[in-house]
Amino acid sequence: MTSRTLRVLGIDPGLTRCGVGVVDVARDRSATLVHVGVIRSAVDDPIERRLATIAAGIRAVVAEHGPAVVAVERVFAQHNRSTVMGTAQASGIALLVAAEAGLPAATHTPSEVKAAVTGYGAADKRQVQTMVARVLRLDALPQPADAADALALALCHAWRTPASTPAAGGGLTPAQRAWAEAESRSKSPTRVARTKIRTGA
Amino acid sequence: MTSRTLRVLGIDPGLTRCGVGVVDVARDRSATLVHVGVIRSAVDDPIERRLATIAAGIRAVVAEHGPAVVAVERVFAQHNRSTVMGTAQASGIALLVAAEAGLPAATHTPSEVKAAVTGYGAADKRQVQTMVARVLRLDALPQPADAADALALALCHAWRTPASTPAAGGGLTPAQRAWAEAESRSKSPTRVARTKIRTGA
Repeated sequence: MTSRTLRVLGIDPGLTRCGVGVVDVARDRSATLVHVGVIRSAVDDPIERRLATIAAGIRAVVAEHGPAVVAVERVFAQHNRSTVMGTAQASGIALLVAAEAGLPAATHTPSEVKAAVTGYGAADKRQVQTMVARVLRLDALPQPADAADALALALCHAWRTPASTPAAGGGLTPAQRAWAEAESRSKSPTRVARTKIRTGA
Repeated sequence: MTSRTLRVLGIDPGLTRCGVGVVDVARDRSATLVHVGVIRSAVDDPIERRLATIAAGIRAVVAEHGPAVVAVERVFAQHNRSTVMGTAQASGIALLVAAEAGLPAATHTPSEVKAAVTGYGAADKRQVQTMVARVLRLDALPQPADAADALALALCHAWRTPASTPAAGGGLTPAQRAWAEAESRSKSPTRVARTKIRTGA
């Protein structure tokens, strides 16, 4: 990581699987994978132990990779009721770990993340995974989806941060460039609306 | 605290006001107030700082009073939408602090707490405050309601714990005894149904 890059830890909060992804994003908005993983807690552990497992896992990633900022997915009450409370609790843990490490934290909604990464706020998980793999020049799609979502969150945060201003590239973000390339290669019409591409700036 | 008492920390989770109450509960189910308070976080602080303030406050209570167990109110998604996510995050923090202090934690629903303390699962806040004050022999009602709720949670947990078996008192819990006494003193008919008194055992 150089002074010209922003290292972001993205966290897709969850009790059973908590996605964590660290990326370095340069001023020209290009991005490099630093770390990706999933912190798991045992379903039959008591809730307080599960949250402690998540906290320990996130603290280990912070200690090892030294992000400058933590981005956490914002959880809404109207989501899947059976798991939303655990997800909210895990998100609280993620934010606490950030604060106690002296790091700023930010939350982004799923549609903000999808719009920043794919140019389309209603993109499906596969589209997000594909774009994350393309932007980070990965040979395979990041698995599981929680890991890809964590990377997407980190990219979203970096690209939405004003300090990381757009540079070369015809005014396109890496996501938009990759998307345009993918489209030009594609034989079939894209299923994704392009009328509302957001730069994430 | 003697070996015959159980020291319980009850936590009514919240971002703006997080109630904390510590009680010693004896084998005969009588209870003594050890500590009661409210941890506040500033509404205009970033969420991660607010959660860190809550965590620090709970850790301080644990360190000072050494509870044997932590009881936290269970949060439901269908509650007040505007604050439920913050409440869920604060409850996650409370559970994490318990686990990291090596303490067991338990959650109880609001109606379980009301039933254990007042004998009536739909009791209102005033009834809960009144019973908490009576059981703990307080001169005034605990204020604010969050503090009373935290004490009620702690009492609920102790009384529902099998180790704290019923002893003398005609088979009545202290809550039931106090309730019966209050009723016998009352000139007006009680508004509270008594047909479904739960012992909390």
